[in-house]
Amino acid sequence: MNFASDNAYAAHPAVMAALERANSGAMMGYGADPVTAEAEAAIRDLVDAPEAVVRFVATGTAANALVCAQLSPPFGRIYCHDDAHIETSECAAPEFFSHGAKLVTLPGTGGKLLPEVLAEAIRVGAGGGLNGGRNAMVSITNATEWGTVHTPAEVADLAAVAKEAGLPLHMDGARFSNAVASLGCSAADLTWRAGVDALCLGGTKNGAMAAEAVVFFDAGRAEAFDYRRKQSGHVFSKSRFLAAQMLALATDGLWLKLADAANAKARALAEAVEAGGGHLLQPVQSNAVFAAIPAETHARARAAGAVYYLWPDKSAEGMNPVPLRLVCAWDTPDDHVEALAAILRG
Amino acid sequence: MNFASDNAYAAHPAVMAALERANSGAMMGYGADPVTAEAEAAIRDLVDAPEAVVRFVATGTAANALVCAQLSPPFGRIYCHDDAHIETSECAAPEFFSHGAKLVTLPGTGGKLLPEVLAEAIRVGAGGGLNGGRNAMVSITNATEWGTVHTPAEVADLAAVAKEAGLPLHMDGARFSNAVASLGCSAADLTWRAGVDALCLGGTKNGAMAAEAVVFFDAGRAEAFDYRRKQSGHVFSKSRFLAAQMLALATDGLWLKLADAANAKARALAEAVEAGGGHLLQPVQSNAVFAAIPAETHARARAAGAVYYLWPDKSAEGMNPVPLRLVCAWDTPDDHVEALAAILRG
Amino acid sequence: MNFASDNAYAAHPAVMAALERANSGAMMGYGADPVTAEAEAAIRDLVDAPEAVVRFVATGTAANALVCAQLSPPFGRIYCHDDAHIETSECAAPEFFSHGAKLVTLPGTGGKLLPEVLAEAIRVGAGGGLNGGRNAMVSITNATEWGTVHTPAEVADLAAVAKEAGLPLHMDGARFSNAVASLGCSAADLTWRAGVDALCLGGTKNGAMAAEAVVFFDAGRAEAFDYRRKQSGHVFSKSRFLAAQMLALATDGLWLKLADAANAKARALAEAVEAGGGHLLQPVQSNAVFAAIPAETHARARAAGAVYYLWPDKSAEGMNPVPLRLVCAWDTPDDHVEALAAILRG
Amino acid sequence: MNFASDNAYAAHPAVMAALERANSGAMMGYGADPVTAEAEAAIRDLVDAPEAVVRFVATGTAANALVCAQLSPPFGRIYCHDDAHIETSECAAPEFFSHGAKLVTLPGTGGKLLPEVLAEAIRVGAGGGLNGGRNAMVSITNATEWGTVHTPAEVADLAAVAKEAGLPLHMDGARFSNAVASLGCSAADLTWRAGVDALCLGGTKNGAMAAEAVVFFDAGRAEAFDYRRKQSGHVFSKSRFLAAQMLALATDGLWLKLADAANAKARALAEAVEAGGGHLLQPVQSNAVFAAIPAETHARARAAGAVYYLWPDKSAEGMNPVPLRLVCAWDTPDDHVEALAAILRG
Repeated sequence: MNFASDNAYAAHPAVMAALERANSGAMMGYGADPVTAEAEAAIRDLVDAPEAVVRFVATGTAANALVCAQLSPPFGRIYCHDDAHIETSECAAPEFFSHGAKLVTLPGTGGKLLPEVLAEAIRVGAGGGLNGGRNAMVSITNATEWGTVHTPAEVADLAAVAKEAGLPLHMDGARFSNAVASLGCSAADLTWRAGVDALCLGGTKNGAMAAEAVVFFDAGRAEAFDYRRKQSGHVFSKSRFLAAQMLALATDGLWLKLADAANAKARALAEAVEAGGGHLLQPVQSNAVFAAIPAETHARARAAGAVYYLWPDKSAEGMNPVPLRLVCAWDTPDDHVEALAAILRG
Repeated sequence: MNFASDNAYAAHPAVMAALERANSGAMMGYGADPVTAEAEAAIRDLVDAPEAVVRFVATGTAANALVCAQLSPPFGRIYCHDDAHIETSECAAPEFFSHGAKLVTLPGTGGKLLPEVLAEAIRVGAGGGLNGGRNAMVSITNATEWGTVHTPAEVADLAAVAKEAGLPLHMDGARFSNAVASLGCSAADLTWRAGVDALCLGGTKNGAMAAEAVVFFDAGRAEAFDYRRKQSGHVFSKSRFLAAQMLALATDGLWLKLADAANAKARALAEAVEAGGGHLLQPVQSNAVFAAIPAETHARARAAGAVYYLWPDKSAEGMNPVPLRLVCAWDTPDDHVEALAAILRG
Repeated sequence: MNFASDNAYAAHPAVMAALERANSGAMMGYGADPVTAEAEAAIRDLVDAPEAVVRFVATGTAANALVCAQLSPPFGRIYCHDDAHIETSECAAPEFFSHGAKLVTLPGTGGKLLPEVLAEAIRVGAGGGLNGGRNAMVSITNATEWGTVHTPAEVADLAAVAKEAGLPLHMDGARFSNAVASLGCSAADLTWRAGVDALCLGGTKNGAMAAEAVVFFDAGRAEAFDYRRKQSGHVFSKSRFLAAQMLALATDGLWLKLADAANAKARALAEAVEAGGGHLLQPVQSNAVFAAIPAETHARARAAGAVYYLWPDKSAEGMNPVPLRLVCAWDTPDDHVEALAAILRG
Repeated sequence: MNFASDNAYAAHPAVMAALERANSGAMMGYGADPVTAEAEAAIRDLVDAPEAVVRFVATGTAANALVCAQLSPPFGRIYCHDDAHIETSECAAPEFFSHGAKLVTLPGTGGKLLPEVLAEAIRVGAGGGLNGGRNAMVSITNATEWGTVHTPAEVADLAAVAKEAGLPLHMDGARFSNAVASLGCSAADLTWRAGVDALCLGGTKNGAMAAEAVVFFDAGRAEAFDYRRKQSGHVFSKSRFLAAQMLALATDGLWLKLADAANAKARALAEAVEAGGGHLLQPVQSNAVFAAIPAETHARARAAGAVYYLWPDKSAEGMNPVPLRLVCAWDTPDDHVEALAAILRG
């Protein structure tokens, strides 16, 4: 009963099948193969952006940090939420790749930046002269680290603030599929139509082995990106095996079907939490549940073998109620979900 | 009437004289000259640490960032105050020099870290696994950015927290002289005896042209430091001219006399603020006054030609009372101090 | 008929099967899974080094550059051959990861450093003071970029020079399997027993999709390596899928069988070159053939659809004889090898 | 009798006087002072480039490395001579500041690149795809590390090669004054009129304490340069003291008078070398003499207290003749020059 993370789960059979199909004979390396070309086209279709530049890497940290280095100079200020993955969970990769850019973290509810807070921070940054570095970019996450989603309108509001200051907007979409599935909007509506300049579109948590797409909606922003990817060791010689994974997810809407499945499991758990006297710490809008549950319920869940993280960390052990995070994947077994839900309901 | 910064002021005649004395004939470069040797010895005496390694650089940003790179790996977490100079005013130099280290900023009153807040942050950092990077060091500032000073006991309390976690303690002492002069303690009491591992001892704001000393109390921590200094362009070929400045300040207690003078001027302004219906935002313990004064007083000060910064930035213009910062140097003219004090008193 | 590179070829069925086996249900991420543990143990067995630290990454550039950053400070001098992959083909990744280390490249026959040349360069580097940076490490490649192999004795000779200077020895083993298969020695004989401190053991060119092992024979040298891997985006959340590939290669000697097959194909081509009036530019000791062939033969090979690189680059087009490189993989079709051999024989 | 380096010598009295003049009262920091403005204008006049952007730093390594970081991305290829100072003597500062750029070093006589060798290297670099990084810039030194000078025509020839490839041309002018004095041309003729894009104009070796000017002839190339300077700790708060030094040198042609004096001393030594049976290793065109002298003469010079470096390093001790380098400064005492000359003449 693993609810620790969606990256604890498997690759979808269609991904495996795509890898098998790609695994035939010789193809030129480093991206000059037909699978890569087809997958890049498929992602462009997915976001309805025929002119976009699409590149694949194997990890979300690589995707995000490469975009930060692409959009920020070493002396840049990157605005993001206090709890952004690039701040909390990537071992300072953005700083490393960019050679020093500073993440300026801001508070905001539910993992989402507030436009007025962002605007004020940008104003202060602009006035800081050389001391604070130069405003460089804004980064948001969708779905957020707190399992909530930005609507297209919310993205547009933040994009408007960024654009007003001449800054590009990056979306960390490690769980972009969950956001789109939750909102029922199009990928285009949630990205470039709302003002996003660069998207990291996650595959790994969506049913791939290890694959993410970096999408620059304005090709000009991708200038020299391939060099950065190469210099950081993120260009695969057998590129087809990265590409095949993303191609499988992008085919026949698989990415959304898998996200839908994961989201539904999370909703089921959320309902159980509330039915059982716990309460939700955040609205459950994607595949993660942040909840506080009675200590007794927690004890029974652990006893039943449920694996999950206390939140924000294990120092929550001993609290009552106990704050925790439950994450569902496309393939979290239904009987596990039902078993945990039963416990949560009390 | 310049109260904008102590670095707006001049070099002391004794510094100029020392430069003239050093300017005689040929000496081997890159530190292999007698002036450098003498100045390093003088600083070791000043901090009463015969085994310390002392090196000179020209700017405070260089001094601090080099120490950060020396004590933190690229994936290190550097704990400091929200308002630390290394965070707010060095254009992400610590991140640049260290190749990515993350400044973990913490709240605290009067520019000073609180031991319990620091301890908790270190605990969280230690528990973060690879995600958050590895705990690397603690940095404090003395005198602080808010003009207050850490006492030896306060330094020792923070050092104890750092040591408990195995972390070295850095002191940004751009205004170290002001702190020592204010406290009346010894430099040793305020540094290595209280647990400081590396000190950046500022000369520029204390009456030098451009000179700072980096002091590693444990020579082992200075391993390869000279390479870092060289690679970042901070080794002077004519090293004697850096050294002579620090030597002059260290001679006959000049550094403390100058700091005393600057501190006294600030106290005079502080008294005037309070006499005139303003209030101090922080205790005035060194050479800076953070105060909120009546808008009318502010208007008269400006009209009289007083130059100073509103605080934290110019958006304070129009407030009443007006928050501002007044900084005094050893050579801020007494009649300027008196003139501004008269205005402040109303 | 692709002879451009061994990375143009496929993954072995046993690798695919291992991926399928690993693709079952939930496992904790970031390396805390049983497949990773098993694969690390398998590589330790392969090199007969029970105390070694083994980590997996997806690309050879990442493996090499991470080792360089691990063993060299930013101001380090890394000694390698003029034609080393880290110098010619990794887009300055070692410089990027290490934050500035300088590759000091040296001439040597057949892609191999000469001990006396290395020793002299190290001597010069040691005498350069701060100017040239500090001697940090030696890197060799086995099999080399020129298709030759270092014997254990040759490795030991170079290791002795490095050890004399206190420098660690890195072996770029992107084609380590080909070298071991060619020599008939043990992996241990060719590495730690001969003085190698860190090995990058290539899987990708040996029949994996994208997998390399980094092996530190002295665990002390791996200190904090996981942070570097994480900060550069090279830790897979679903680590099992990297590990499974290396596990498959390490099982039942598959890695050597595949290397043997590739080497044999190269030998067949080499014989054909010589039979057809071409000559070998280097002894063919692994899976690559560097040869100069009659222009007419080249023309016929191209007409028949053979794909390969002229060497060192396409400016060789028009020469007679034509210098070129032919690389074989474990799965280069035998009929392709025979067809090209027939052309080469004239 | 110090002939080790021109940076072993003093600052000119006019420089000291300028520092004294600048040392009066309060001025705003970080370059917002009248001395800095006046000095920048003086340097623009010196190079007859009213639109140029001029900035001051304290060391030649900082000047060169900052320009490299400004003109090259982390994945850039920087073409320079095998013996360029940026390659041999700056502890990999260009790699550090640029975050990984690769110095592609090329042979050439007398410290000067050969246009055809440069063109071929650029061609190879352009053809290397991602592997070798992207062509970024060309760097030359004038006067060279071998004491020779590039004429305006030679600079123009190299600039033409660079321009043909779309690459900017940097001139390391640590001894630019010596070159201009030697050639009798204008600074403009030797720089922007010949195609130089960025000049590091050295003051330290020309009679300053520690001051260099960075000049971007096209202001567009200086975009954000101030941030780089700040982030690397090279912005002085008391900027006036850097500026005053350069202002003094630029006033009344002092820079050329001092360079003339140094050059003349070197010529005197060169004549003595040849008269005494030694031979010149390079034409003596600036203030350095590279010569091989009889071992006996060397022994007598050492006995007389002459300090100089054997070349390329001390391993030359014991050779006969002995290769060495003699460098003269504006203030190398005439009686020292005469004394050494007498010995050299035998």
